[in-house]
Amino acid sequence: MTKDRKVILYIAASLDGYIAKPNDDLSFLSLIQSTGEDYGYDDLKKSIDTVIMGRKTFDWVMKQIGGVPHPDTDTYVITRTKRPDIGKTKFYTENLSELVRNLKEEKGKNIYCDGGAEIVTELLKEQLIDEVIISIIPVLLGEGTRLFKDGRPEQELTLVSVKQFKSGLAQLYYKRADKI
Amino acid sequence: MTKDRKVILYIAASLDGYIAKPNDDLSFLSLIQSTGEDYGYDDLKKSIDTVIMGRKTFDWVMKQIGGVPHPDTDTYVITRTKRPDIGKTKFYTENLSELVRNLKEEKGKNIYCDGGAEIVTELLKEQLIDEVIISIIPVLLGEGTRLFKDGRPEQELTLVSVKQFKSGLAQLYYKRADKI
Repeated sequence: MTKDRKVILYIAASLDGYIAKPNDDLSFLSLIQSTGEDYGYDDLKKSIDTVIMGRKTFDWVMKQIGGVPHPDTDTYVITRTKRPDIGKTKFYTENLSELVRNLKEEKGKNIYCDGGAEIVTELLKEQLIDEVIISIIPVLLGEGTRLFKDGRPEQELTLVSVKQFKSGLAQLYYKRADKI
Repeated sequence: MTKDRKVILYIAASLDGYIAKPNDDLSFLSLIQSTGEDYGYDDLKKSIDTVIMGRKTFDWVMKQIGGVPHPDTDTYVITRTKRPDIGKTKFYTENLSELVRNLKEEKGKNIYCDGGAEIVTELLKEQLIDEVIISIIPVLLGEGTRLFKDGRPEQELTLVSVKQFKSGLAQLYYKRADKI
């Protein structure tokens, strides 16, 4: 599977493009969590064997669930400050793009980018994200942390599918146009 | 039809939320203009009898097509500098929210908000947009003019429909949740 290993961004955002309200408030996600619908997360997890995520996102999830976000999956938490491993979770202080390029050269399943915005921006700057699955929450948050920051190169995408869920979630699935 | 008159935002944006690249470059729209598909514009035009748009957007379209954007429809161009009417096109220098509130009290068909970002932001700040139809172009532009600026109130939406087009355009249709 060398060279076929893809980096998949799977993330939720409001219609106006925020992944959190000010102060890392994610309460808007509860808008779509009531129906028990399958938003494809289990399928995603089956297709990947590695997770990359930012340190702030990691700490936020740790605080919420009281444990590492992906205990059964090799996880790289991108951070400037080294911490000891927690099981399969490693804290990575070197160059993110280099890590991803190296992982893509190794055999393995896909790589799940679990946010946050800083990691997404850095990977998009280096055009290292191959697939984007965005779950759009039916709300205009008005302000907060933007998923897509300014200052990235233009990148054409191919729309694979759109899905509408009863909860009001709209899920858009794209691949890089130059990888089709 | 008093009180049922809706303000409809019908607009195209890139997946990362821009309506133009720097220098008002709209060339990315050509990505989805090749297939001759019906993105619902004619239906929209039949449902409205009034257009509201910003002065910059107006001037941009004038320059592109060499005439007013909506010659057959009452159009309010929101501007700080008065100009003489051009047929059904009026240049409006007073308070935008007041204009929209007054129009909504009059009998008539719906009101089409044709952008740009400044007008959208002002109307969203006053919660005066009733329906949002966003056509998402399959590209990450990386930088440009954002459709949704910061500093608006939170507003819940109800997802009405999602449509996928061969061109790669994904169209999301929302109504204000408190107006359902």
